[in-house]
Amino acid sequence: MKLVRYGDVGHEKPGLMDGDTLRDLSAHIDDIHGATLGDGTLDKLRNIDLATLPAIDGSPRIGPCVGNVGKFLCIGLNYSDHAAEQGLPIPEHPILFFKANSAIVGPNDDVVMPRGSKRTDWEVELGAVIGKTCKYVSKDDALDYVAGYCIVNDVSEREFQQNLTGQWTKGKSCDTFGPTGPYLVTRDELGDPQALDMTLSVNGKRMQTGNTATMIFSVAEIIEHLSHLFTLHPGDVISTGTPPGVGDGMNPKTYLKVGDVMELEIAGLGTQRQEVKQDA
Amino acid sequence: MKLVRYGDVGHEKPGLMDGDTLRDLSAHIDDIHGATLGDGTLDKLRNIDLATLPAIDGSPRIGPCVGNVGKFLCIGLNYSDHAAEQGLPIPEHPILFFKANSAIVGPNDDVVMPRGSKRTDWEVELGAVIGKTCKYVSKDDALDYVAGYCIVNDVSEREFQQNLTGQWTKGKSCDTFGPTGPYLVTRDELGDPQALDMTLSVNGKRMQTGNTATMIFSVAEIIEHLSHLFTLHPGDVISTGTPPGVGDGMNPKTYLKVGDVMELEIAGLGTQRQEVKQDA
Repeated sequence: MKLVRYGDVGHEKPGLMDGDTLRDLSAHIDDIHGATLGDGTLDKLRNIDLATLPAIDGSPRIGPCVGNVGKFLCIGLNYSDHAAEQGLPIPEHPILFFKANSAIVGPNDDVVMPRGSKRTDWEVELGAVIGKTCKYVSKDDALDYVAGYCIVNDVSEREFQQNLTGQWTKGKSCDTFGPTGPYLVTRDELGDPQALDMTLSVNGKRMQTGNTATMIFSVAEIIEHLSHLFTLHPGDVISTGTPPGVGDGMNPKTYLKVGDVMELEIAGLGTQRQEVKQDA
Repeated sequence: MKLVRYGDVGHEKPGLMDGDTLRDLSAHIDDIHGATLGDGTLDKLRNIDLATLPAIDGSPRIGPCVGNVGKFLCIGLNYSDHAAEQGLPIPEHPILFFKANSAIVGPNDDVVMPRGSKRTDWEVELGAVIGKTCKYVSKDDALDYVAGYCIVNDVSEREFQQNLTGQWTKGKSCDTFGPTGPYLVTRDELGDPQALDMTLSVNGKRMQTGNTATMIFSVAEIIEHLSHLFTLHPGDVISTGTPPGVGDGMNPKTYLKVGDVMELEIAGLGTQRQEVKQDA
Protein backbone atom coordinates (compact mmCIF):
# COMPACT_ATOMS: atom_id res chain seq x y z
CA MET A 1 0.00 0.00 0.00
CA LYS A 2 0.93 3.60 -0.56
CA LEU A 3 -0.45 5.51 2.44
CA VAL A 4 -0.87 9.26 2.18
CA ARG A 5 -1.87 12.12 4.47
CA TYR A 6 -3.64 14.96 2.67
CA GLY A 7 -5.23 18.28 3.52
CA ASP A 8 -4.28 21.47 5.32
CA VAL A 9 -1.29 21.66 7.66
CA GLY A 10 -2.18 20.13 11.00
CA HIS A 11 -5.51 18.82 9.69
CA GLU A 12 -4.33 16.06 7.38
CA LYS A 13 -6.62 13.10 6.69
CA PRO A 14 -5.49 9.55 6.02
CA GLY A 15 -5.70 8.20 2.50
CA LEU A 16 -4.20 5.69 0.15
CA MET A 17 -3.32 5.53 -3.51
CA ASP A 18 -5.38 3.30 -5.77
CA GLY A 19 -3.26 3.62 -8.89
CA ASP A 20 -3.32 7.36 -9.54
CA THR A 21 -6.48 7.86 -7.49
CA LEU A 22 -6.25 9.16 -3.93
CA ARG A 23 -8.91 7.56 -1.73
CA ASP A 24 -10.03 8.60 1.74
CA LEU A 25 -9.33 6.23 4.65
CA SER A 26 -11.02 8.36 7.33
CA ALA A 27 -13.78 5.84 7.89
CA HIS A 28 -11.20 3.23 8.90
CA ILE A 29 -8.41 5.04 10.74
CA ASP A 30 -8.14 8.49 12.32
CA ASP A 31 -4.63 9.19 11.03
CA ILE A 32 -1.48 7.54 9.73
CA HIS A 33 0.65 7.61 12.87
CA GLY A 34 2.19 5.32 15.44
CA ALA A 35 -1.13 3.95 16.66
CA THR A 36 -2.18 2.78 13.19
CA LEU A 37 1.11 1.42 11.83
CA GLY A 38 1.04 -2.02 13.42
CA ASP A 39 0.75 -5.13 11.24
CA GLY A 40 -2.79 -5.76 12.48
CA THR A 41 -4.12 -2.41 11.33
CA LEU A 42 -2.17 -2.53 8.07
CA ASP A 43 -3.58 -6.00 7.34
CA LYS A 44 -7.11 -4.69 7.89
CA LEU A 45 -6.46 -1.82 5.50
CA ARG A 46 -5.13 -4.26 2.91
CA ASN A 47 -8.39 -6.15 3.00
CA ILE A 48 -10.62 -3.16 2.27
CA ASP A 49 -12.42 -3.19 -1.07
CA LEU A 50 -10.88 -0.04 -2.55
CA ALA A 51 -14.06 0.76 -4.45
CA THR A 52 -15.76 1.45 -1.10
CA LEU A 53 -13.31 4.25 -0.31
CA PRO A 54 -14.33 7.74 -1.48
CA ALA A 55 -12.09 9.08 -4.27
CA ILE A 56 -10.68 12.55 -3.61
CA ASP A 57 -11.13 15.04 -6.42
CA GLY A 58 -8.64 17.69 -7.35
CA SER A 59 -5.12 18.04 -6.01
CA PRO A 60 -5.15 18.55 -2.26
CA ARG A 61 -1.95 19.42 -0.44
CA ILE A 62 -0.01 16.29 0.52
CA GLY A 63 1.20 16.30 4.13
CA PRO A 64 4.05 14.40 5.71
CA CYS A 65 3.22 10.71 5.31
CA VAL A 66 3.31 10.01 9.04
CA GLY A 67 1.81 12.18 11.76
CA ASN A 68 2.78 12.76 15.38
CA VAL A 69 6.35 11.56 14.87
CA GLY A 70 8.07 10.86 18.19
CA LYS A 71 11.73 10.59 17.28
CA PHE A 72 13.11 11.86 13.98
CA LEU A 73 16.42 10.01 13.87
CA CYS A 74 19.07 10.55 11.25
CA ILE A 75 22.19 8.68 10.27
CA GLY A 76 25.17 10.69 9.07
CA LEU A 77 27.84 9.75 6.55
CA ASN A 78 26.17 6.48 5.68
CA TYR A 79 27.26 6.29 2.04
CA SER A 80 30.94 5.61 1.56
CA ASP A 81 31.22 7.94 -1.43
CA HIS A 82 29.43 10.76 0.47
CA ALA A 83 31.86 10.37 3.37
CA ALA A 84 34.73 10.65 0.89
CA GLU A 85 33.14 13.75 -0.66
CA GLN A 86 32.99 15.38 2.79
CA GLY A 87 36.58 14.38 3.52
CA LEU A 88 35.55 12.31 6.53
CA PRO A 89 36.53 8.74 7.44
CA ILE A 90 34.14 5.80 7.17
CA PRO A 91 32.45 5.63 10.57
CA GLU A 92 32.87 2.57 12.76
CA HIS A 93 29.25 2.72 13.95
CA PRO A 94 26.23 4.50 12.50
CA ILE A 95 26.49 8.21 13.33
CA LEU A 96 23.25 9.29 14.97
CA PHE A 97 21.79 12.73 15.24
CA PHE A 98 18.29 13.99 15.80
CA LYS A 99 16.30 16.32 13.66
CA ALA A 100 13.57 18.19 15.53
CA ASN A 101 10.22 16.56 14.81
CA SER A 102 8.94 20.13 14.38
CA ALA A 103 11.04 20.31 11.18
CA ILE A 104 8.76 17.85 9.40
CA VAL A 105 6.66 19.18 6.52
CA GLY A 106 4.91 17.74 3.49
CA PRO A 107 6.88 16.56 0.47
CA ASN A 108 5.97 19.57 -1.67
CA ASP A 109 5.81 22.30 0.97
CA ASP A 110 8.20 25.23 0.79
CA VAL A 111 11.60 24.90 2.42
CA VAL A 112 12.15 28.15 4.32
CA MET A 113 15.71 29.09 5.18
CA PRO A 114 15.88 30.75 8.59
CA ARG A 115 17.14 34.29 9.14
CA GLY A 116 20.86 34.52 8.58
CA SER A 117 21.09 31.27 6.66
CA LYS A 118 23.58 31.36 3.79
CA ARG A 119 24.62 27.70 3.47
CA THR A 120 21.44 25.65 3.20
CA ASP A 121 21.95 22.32 1.47
CA TRP A 122 19.98 19.30 0.27
CA GLU A 123 20.18 15.58 1.12
CA VAL A 124 17.92 12.97 -0.46
CA GLU A 125 17.48 10.06 1.95
CA LEU A 126 15.55 6.85 2.42
CA GLY A 127 13.32 7.06 5.51
CA ALA A 128 12.18 3.98 7.44
CA VAL A 129 9.07 4.35 9.61
CA ILE A 130 8.82 2.10 12.66
CA GLY A 131 5.56 0.17 13.01
CA LYS A 132 6.13 -1.94 16.11
CA THR A 133 7.89 -1.27 19.43
CA CYS A 134 11.49 -2.38 19.00
CA LYS A 135 14.26 -2.96 21.59
CA TYR A 136 17.41 -5.12 21.39
CA VAL A 137 16.54 -6.62 18.01
CA SER A 138 19.00 -8.34 15.72
CA LYS A 139 19.58 -7.21 12.17
CA ASP A 140 18.02 -10.45 10.96
CA ASP A 141 14.69 -9.48 12.53
CA ALA A 142 14.98 -5.71 12.30
CA LEU A 143 12.99 -5.11 9.12
CA ASP A 144 9.94 -6.79 10.66
CA TYR A 145 9.65 -3.69 12.85
CA VAL A 146 9.41 -1.34 9.88
CA ALA A 147 5.91 -0.32 8.78
CA GLY A 148 7.15 1.19 5.56
CA TYR A 149 9.47 3.55 3.76
CA CYS A 150 9.40 7.08 2.40
CA ILE A 151 11.57 9.85 0.98
CA VAL A 152 13.12 12.36 3.40
CA ASN A 153 14.94 15.53 2.37
CA ASP A 154 17.41 16.04 5.22
CA VAL A 155 17.76 19.77 4.56
CA SER A 156 20.86 21.07 6.34
CA GLU A 157 22.24 24.52 7.16
CA ARG A 158 25.98 23.87 7.02
CA GLU A 159 27.01 27.03 8.90
CA PHE A 160 24.67 26.18 11.77
CA GLN A 161 25.73 22.51 11.58
CA GLN A 162 29.48 23.11 11.54
CA ASN A 163 30.19 26.47 13.16
CA LEU A 164 27.59 27.13 15.85
CA THR A 165 29.51 25.11 18.45
CA GLY A 166 29.26 21.37 18.34
CA GLN A 167 26.55 18.84 17.53
CA TRP A 168 25.07 18.82 14.04
CA THR A 169 21.50 19.10 15.21
CA LYS A 170 21.39 22.92 15.04
CA GLY A 171 21.76 22.87 11.27
CA LYS A 172 19.33 20.00 10.83
CA SER A 173 16.35 21.09 12.88
CA CYS A 174 15.18 24.36 11.33
CA ASP A 175 11.46 24.59 10.59
CA THR A 176 10.59 22.99 7.19
CA PHE A 177 13.95 21.16 7.04
CA GLY A 178 12.31 17.72 7.01
CA PRO A 179 10.07 17.17 3.96
CA THR A 180 8.73 13.63 4.39
CA GLY A 181 6.66 11.63 1.91
CA PRO A 182 4.66 11.71 -0.32
CA TYR A 183 3.84 8.07 0.42
CA LEU A 184 4.48 5.72 3.25
CA VAL A 185 5.02 2.62 1.13
CA THR A 186 4.46 -0.47 3.25
CA ARG A 187 7.42 -2.81 3.48
CA ASP A 188 5.64 -5.68 1.68
CA GLU A 189 5.05 -3.40 -1.30
CA LEU A 190 8.55 -1.92 -1.49
CA GLY A 191 10.54 -5.12 -1.18
CA ASP A 192 14.32 -4.86 -0.70
CA PRO A 193 15.19 -1.42 0.73
CA GLN A 194 18.84 -1.86 -0.27
CA ALA A 195 18.38 -1.68 -4.03
CA LEU A 196 16.68 1.68 -4.64
CA ASP A 197 17.85 4.30 -7.10
CA MET A 198 17.66 7.81 -5.68
CA THR A 199 18.15 11.23 -7.22
CA LEU A 200 17.94 14.90 -6.33
CA SER A 201 17.93 17.82 -8.75
CA VAL A 202 18.04 21.58 -8.18
CA ASN A 203 16.40 23.73 -10.86
CA GLY A 204 16.38 20.70 -13.12
CA LYS A 205 20.11 20.02 -12.78
CA ARG A 206 20.97 16.62 -11.36
CA MET A 207 22.95 16.99 -8.14
CA GLN A 208 22.65 13.62 -6.39
CA THR A 209 22.58 10.18 -7.97
CA GLY A 210 22.82 7.16 -5.76
CA ASN A 211 21.48 3.78 -4.80
CA THR A 212 20.73 2.45 -1.34
CA ALA A 213 22.93 -0.55 -2.20
CA THR A 214 25.98 1.57 -1.30
CA MET A 215 24.95 2.31 2.27
CA ILE A 216 27.70 1.61 4.80
CA PHE A 217 25.15 0.41 7.38
CA SER A 218 21.99 -1.18 6.00
CA VAL A 219 18.56 -0.23 7.32
CA ALA A 220 18.53 -3.50 9.28
CA GLU A 221 21.95 -2.81 10.82
CA ILE A 222 20.91 0.72 11.76
CA ILE A 223 17.77 -0.53 13.49
CA GLU A 224 19.76 -3.20 15.34
CA HIS A 225 22.23 -0.56 16.56
CA LEU A 226 19.64 2.03 17.58
CA SER A 227 17.43 -0.53 19.32
CA HIS A 228 20.36 -1.38 21.59
CA LEU A 229 20.54 2.26 22.65
CA PHE A 230 16.84 2.96 23.23
CA THR A 231 13.37 1.77 22.34
CA LEU A 232 12.10 2.58 18.88
CA HIS A 233 8.40 3.35 18.98
CA PRO A 234 5.74 3.15 16.27
CA GLY A 235 5.80 6.38 14.31
CA ASP A 236 9.51 7.02 14.84
CA VAL A 237 11.21 7.92 11.55
CA ILE A 238 14.80 6.96 10.73
CA SER A 239 16.44 8.81 7.86
CA THR A 240 19.31 6.68 6.69
CA GLY A 241 21.87 9.03 5.18
CA THR A 242 22.54 10.60 1.82
CA PRO A 243 24.54 9.61 -1.25
CA PRO A 244 27.14 11.94 -2.86
CA GLY A 245 26.28 15.24 -4.46
CA VAL A 246 25.46 17.62 -1.62
CA GLY A 247 26.27 21.28 -2.25
CA ASP A 248 28.76 21.46 0.60
CA GLY A 249 30.87 18.80 -1.13
CA MET A 250 30.98 20.55 -4.52
CA ASN A 251 33.84 22.67 -5.85
CA PRO A 252 33.01 25.47 -5.50
CA LYS A 253 30.61 24.83 -2.63
CA THR A 254 27.05 25.52 -3.72
CA TYR A 255 24.04 26.34 -1.57
CA LEU A 256 20.35 26.95 -2.07
CA LYS A 257 19.00 30.37 -3.05
CA VAL A 258 15.54 31.83 -2.76
CA GLY A 259 13.45 30.55 -5.66
CA ASP A 260 15.43 27.37 -6.20
CA VAL A 261 13.39 24.21 -6.74
CA MET A 262 14.49 20.84 -5.37
CA GLU A 263 13.11 17.64 -6.90
CA LEU A 264 13.71 14.29 -5.23
CA GLU A 265 12.91 10.74 -6.29
CA ILE A 266 13.50 7.30 -4.83
CA ALA A 267 12.43 4.27 -6.85
CA GLY A 268 9.02 3.07 -5.69
CA LEU A 269 8.57 5.91 -3.19
CA GLY A 270 7.38 8.72 -5.46
CA THR A 271 8.72 12.23 -5.81
CA GLN A 272 9.10 15.43 -3.80
CA ARG A 273 9.31 19.02 -5.03
CA GLN A 274 10.13 21.99 -2.80
CA GLU A 275 10.57 25.66 -3.57
CA VAL A 276 13.11 27.53 -1.43
CA LYS A 277 12.12 30.65 0.50
CA GLN A 278 13.77 32.59 3.32
CA ASP A 279 12.51 34.17 6.51
CA ALA A 280 12.88 37.94 6.42
CA MET B 1 1.43 26.80 41.08
CA LYS B 2 3.12 23.45 41.37
CA LEU B 3 1.58 21.27 38.67
CA VAL B 4 1.93 17.50 38.94
CA ARG B 5 1.08 14.48 36.83
CA TYR B 6 0.29 11.38 38.88
CA GLY B 7 -0.77 7.80 38.28
CA ASP B 8 0.43 4.83 36.27
CA VAL B 9 2.88 5.15 33.39
CA GLY B 10 1.07 6.42 30.33
CA HIS B 11 -2.12 7.09 32.27
CA GLU B 12 -1.07 10.08 34.36
CA LYS B 13 -3.71 12.54 35.54
CA PRO B 14 -3.19 16.26 36.06
CA GLY B 15 -2.97 17.61 39.57
CA LEU B 16 -1.54 20.42 41.63
CA MET B 17 -0.03 20.80 45.04
CA ASP B 18 -2.01 22.63 47.72
CA GLY B 19 0.70 22.80 50.37
CA ASP B 20 1.49 19.13 50.95
CA THR B 21 -1.84 17.98 49.53
CA LEU B 22 -2.06 16.68 45.98
CA ARG B 23 -5.35 17.69 44.36
CA ASP B 24 -6.90 16.39 41.16
CA LEU B 25 -7.25 18.81 38.21
CA SER B 26 -8.97 16.34 35.87
CA ALA B 27 -12.24 18.26 35.92
CA HIS B 28 -10.46 21.30 34.48
CA ILE B 29 -7.79 20.03 32.09
CA ASP B 30 -7.16 16.67 30.43
CA ASP B 31 -3.41 16.68 31.00
CA ILE B 32 -0.44 18.93 31.68
CA HIS B 33 1.00 19.23 28.20
CA GLY B 34 1.53 21.73 25.41
CA ALA B 35 -2.16 22.39 24.88
CA THR B 36 -2.72 23.41 28.52
CA LEU B 37 0.44 25.40 29.25
CA GLY B 38 -0.60 28.73 27.77
CA ASP B 39 -1.05 31.77 30.00
CA GLY B 40 -4.83 31.68 29.50
CA THR B 41 -5.22 28.16 30.83
CA LEU B 42 -2.74 28.71 33.64
CA ASP B 43 -4.63 31.87 34.69
CA LYS B 44 -7.87 29.89 34.82
CA LEU B 45 -6.23 27.24 36.99
CA ARG B 46 -4.92 29.94 39.33
CA ASN B 47 -8.44 31.17 39.90
CA ILE B 48 -9.84 27.81 40.99
CA ASP B 49 -10.94 27.56 44.63
CA LEU B 50 -8.56 24.79 45.71
CA ALA B 51 -11.10 23.42 48.18
CA THR B 52 -13.25 22.37 45.22
CA LEU B 53 -10.51 20.07 43.89
CA PRO B 54 -10.58 16.47 45.17
CA ALA B 55 -7.64 15.64 47.45
CA ILE B 56 -5.74 12.51 46.44
CA ASP B 57 -5.16 10.02 49.25
CA GLY B 58 -2.04 7.91 49.61
CA SER B 59 1.13 8.24 47.60
CA PRO B 60 0.50 7.65 43.93
CA ARG B 61 3.38 7.39 41.52
CA ILE B 62 4.45 10.81 40.27
CA GLY B 63 4.92 10.97 36.50
CA PRO B 64 6.99 13.37 34.43
CA CYS B 65 5.54 16.84 35.05
CA VAL B 66 4.77 17.45 31.38
CA GLY B 67 3.22 14.99 28.96
CA ASN B 68 3.57 14.53 25.22
CA VAL B 69 6.87 16.42 25.03
CA GLY B 70 7.72 17.39 21.46
CA LYS B 71 11.39 18.37 21.65
CA PHE B 72 13.60 17.45 24.60
CA LEU B 73 16.45 19.91 24.09
CA CYS B 74 19.61 19.94 26.14
CA ILE B 75 22.43 22.41 26.52
CA GLY B 76 25.92 21.04 27.09
CA LEU B 77 28.79 22.54 29.07
CA ASN B 78 26.71 25.45 30.32
CA TYR B 79 28.42 25.90 33.68
CA SER B 80 31.92 27.31 33.45
CA ASP B 81 33.22 25.14 36.29
CA HIS B 82 31.68 21.99 34.74
CA ALA B 83 33.39 22.79 31.42
CA ALA B 84 36.69 23.13 33.28
CA GLU B 85 36.07 19.81 35.07
CA GLN B 86 35.57 18.12 31.68
CA GLY B 87 38.67 19.78 30.29
CA LEU B 88 36.71 21.55 27.58
CA PRO B 89 36.77 25.21 26.56
CA ILE B 90 33.95 27.63 27.33
CA PRO B 91 31.64 27.38 24.32
CA GLU B 92 31.03 30.42 22.15
CA HIS B 93 27.35 29.54 21.67
CA PRO B 94 25.06 27.24 23.64
CA ILE B 95 25.90 23.64 22.71
CA LEU B 96 22.67 21.93 21.71
CA PHE B 97 21.88 18.25 21.65
CA PHE B 98 18.64 16.33 21.77
CA LYS B 99 17.61 13.70 24.22
CA ALA B 100 14.98 11.31 22.86
CA ASN B 101 11.58 12.27 24.26
CA SER B 102 11.14 8.53 24.85
CA ALA B 103 13.80 8.81 27.58
CA ILE B 104 11.47 10.83 29.82
CA VAL B 105 10.27 9.17 33.04
CA GLY B 106 8.89 10.28 36.36
CA PRO B 107 11.16 11.88 38.97
CA ASN B 108 11.26 8.80 41.18
CA ASP B 109 11.13 6.04 38.58
CA ASP B 110 14.04 3.64 38.23
CA VAL B 111 16.93 4.58 35.98
CA VAL B 112 17.72 1.46 33.95
CA MET B 113 21.16 1.22 32.39
CA PRO B 114 20.99 -0.44 28.96
CA ARG B 115 22.78 -3.66 28.12
CA GLY B 116 26.50 -3.16 27.95
CA SER B 117 26.47 0.11 29.83
CA LYS B 118 29.43 0.57 32.16
CA ARG B 119 29.79 4.35 32.35
CA THR B 120 26.39 5.74 33.29
CA ASP B 121 26.56 9.14 34.95
CA TRP B 122 24.31 11.76 36.57
CA GLU B 123 23.62 15.42 35.76
CA VAL B 124 21.25 17.57 37.80
CA GLU B 125 19.79 20.30 35.57
CA LEU B 126 17.21 23.06 35.55
CA GLY B 127 14.51 22.37 32.97
CA ALA B 128 12.45 25.12 31.34
CA VAL B 129 9.10 24.12 29.82
CA ILE B 130 7.83 26.22 26.91
CA GLY B 131 4.25 27.48 27.23
CA LYS B 132 3.80 29.59 24.12
CA THR B 133 4.97 29.22 20.51
CA CYS B 134 8.30 31.00 20.26
CA LYS B 135 10.35 32.07 17.20
CA TYR B 136 12.99 34.79 16.81
CA VAL B 137 12.51 36.16 20.33
CA SER B 138 15.01 38.38 22.13
CA LYS B 139 16.47 37.43 25.48
CA ASP B 140 14.57 40.34 27.03
CA ASP B 141 11.25 38.72 26.12
CA ALA B 142 12.31 35.08 26.21
CA LEU B 143 11.13 34.16 29.71
CA ASP B 144 7.56 35.19 28.82
CA TYR B 145 7.46 32.05 26.68
CA VAL B 146 8.26 29.75 29.59
CA ALA B 147 5.31 28.09 31.32
CA GLY B 148 7.44 26.94 34.22
CA TYR B 149 10.47 25.09 35.48
CA CYS B 150 11.35 21.64 36.76
CA ILE B 151 14.25 19.37 37.68
CA VAL B 152 15.76 17.17 34.96
CA ASN B 153 18.32 14.44 35.56
CA ASP B 154 20.25 14.36 32.28
CA VAL B 155 21.44 10.78 32.79
CA SER B 156 24.33 10.07 30.41
CA GLU B 157 26.16 6.94 29.28
CA ARG B 158 29.66 8.30 28.71
CA GLU B 159 30.90 5.38 26.59
CA PHE B 160 27.92 5.70 24.25
CA GLN B 161 28.29 9.51 24.31
CA GLN B 162 32.01 9.65 23.61
CA ASN B 163 33.02 6.46 21.82
CA LEU B 164 30.13 5.25 19.66
CA THR B 165 31.09 7.57 16.79
CA GLY B 166 30.14 11.18 17.00
CA GLN B 167 27.21 13.15 18.37
CA TRP B 168 26.45 12.95 22.08
CA THR B 169 22.86 11.96 21.63
CA LYS B 170 23.52 8.19 21.75
CA GLY B 171 24.59 8.40 25.37
CA LYS B 172 21.79 10.74 26.33
CA SER B 173 18.73 9.06 24.88
CA CYS B 174 18.53 5.64 26.55
CA ASP B 175 15.14 4.73 28.01
CA THR B 176 14.66 6.18 31.53
CA PHE B 177 17.57 8.63 31.06
CA GLY B 178 15.32 11.69 31.48
CA PRO B 179 13.65 11.84 34.91
CA THR B 180 11.60 15.05 34.81
CA GLY B 181 9.70 16.66 37.69
CA PRO B 182 8.23 16.23 40.26
CA TYR B 183 6.59 19.63 39.78
CA LEU B 184 6.19 21.99 36.91
CA VAL B 185 6.52 25.18 38.94
CA THR B 186 4.97 28.07 37.04
CA ARG B 187 7.31 30.95 36.28
CA ASP B 188 5.40 33.43 38.46
CA GLU B 189 5.85 31.14 41.45
CA LEU B 190 9.54 30.39 40.92
CA GLY B 191 10.77 33.91 40.30
CA ASP B 192 14.36 34.36 39.08
CA PRO B 193 15.58 31.13 37.44
CA GLN B 194 19.20 32.29 37.72
CA ALA B 195 19.54 32.09 41.50
CA LEU B 196 18.66 28.49 42.35
CA ASP B 197 20.78 26.19 44.50
CA MET B 198 21.00 22.68 43.06
CA THR B 199 22.42 19.45 44.42
CA LEU B 200 22.78 15.79 43.53
CA SER B 201 23.81 12.97 45.86
CA VAL B 202 24.53 9.30 45.19
CA ASN B 203 23.88 6.93 48.08
CA GLY B 204 23.72 9.93 50.38
CA LYS B 205 27.09 11.31 49.33
CA ARG B 206 26.98 14.80 47.84
CA MET B 207 28.34 14.76 44.29
CA GLN B 208 27.07 17.97 42.70
CA THR B 209 26.64 21.35 44.34
CA GLY B 210 25.85 24.33 42.15
CA ASN B 211 23.72 27.37 41.56
CA THR B 212 22.07 28.46 38.33
CA ALA B 213 23.77 31.85 38.80
CA THR B 214 26.94 30.34 37.29
CA MET B 215 25.39 29.34 33.96
CA ILE B 216 27.41 30.53 30.97
CA PHE B 217 24.23 31.14 28.95
CA SER B 218 21.14 32.13 30.94
CA VAL B 219 17.77 30.50 30.30
CA ALA B 220 16.74 33.67 28.45
CA GLU B 221 19.84 33.63 26.26
CA ILE B 222 19.35 29.94 25.48
CA ILE B 223 15.76 30.52 24.40
CA GLU B 224 16.80 33.48 22.26
CA HIS B 225 19.45 31.35 20.54
CA LEU B 226 17.28 28.28 19.98
CA SER B 227 14.31 30.33 18.76
CA HIS B 228 16.52 31.69 15.99
CA LEU B 229 17.19 28.12 14.83
CA PHE B 230 13.67 26.72 14.97
CA THR B 231 10.27 27.22 16.53
CA LEU B 232 9.88 26.25 20.16
CA HIS B 233 6.45 24.78 20.77
CA PRO B 234 4.35 24.52 23.94
CA GLY B 235 5.44 21.41 25.80
CA ASP B 236 9.02 21.48 24.55
CA VAL B 237 11.48 21.00 27.42
CA ILE B 238 14.90 22.66 27.55
CA SER B 239 17.39 21.21 30.01
CA THR B 240 19.96 23.89 30.64
CA GLY B 241 23.17 22.10 31.59
CA THR B 242 24.78 20.76 34.72
CA PRO B 243 27.11 22.18 37.38
CA PRO B 244 30.38 20.44 38.41
CA GLY B 245 30.52 17.05 40.06
CA VAL B 246 29.64 14.51 37.41
CA GLY B 247 31.23 11.09 37.80
CA ASP B 248 33.10 11.35 34.50
CA GLY B 249 34.95 14.39 35.85
CA MET B 250 36.06 12.74 39.11
CA ASN B 251 39.49 11.25 39.80
CA PRO B 252 39.16 8.32 39.58
CA LYS B 253 36.18 8.45 37.24
CA THR B 254 33.09 7.09 38.99
CA TYR B 255 29.95 5.67 37.45
CA LEU B 256 26.61 4.36 38.64
CA LYS B 257 26.17 0.77 39.80
CA VAL B 258 23.06 -1.34 40.15
CA GLY B 259 21.37 -0.45 43.44
CA ASP B 260 22.76 3.08 43.64
CA VAL B 261 20.29 5.78 44.62
CA MET B 262 20.43 9.28 43.13
CA GLU B 263 18.77 12.18 44.96
CA LEU B 264 18.38 15.55 43.27
CA GLU B 265 17.12 18.90 44.52
CA ILE B 266 16.74 22.37 43.05
CA ALA B 267 15.51 25.16 45.30
CA GLY B 268 11.78 25.65 44.86
CA LEU B 269 11.41 22.73 42.44
CA GLY B 270 11.24 19.79 44.85
CA THR B 271 13.29 16.63 44.86
CA GLN B 272 13.89 13.52 42.74
CA ARG B 273 15.02 10.06 43.84
CA GLN B 274 15.96 7.26 41.43
CA GLU B 275 17.24 3.76 42.03
CA VAL B 276 19.63 2.36 39.41
CA LYS B 277 18.92 -0.93 37.65
CA GLN B 278 20.33 -2.55 34.52
CA ASP B 279 18.82 -4.40 31.61
CA ALA B 280 19.92 -8.03 31.54
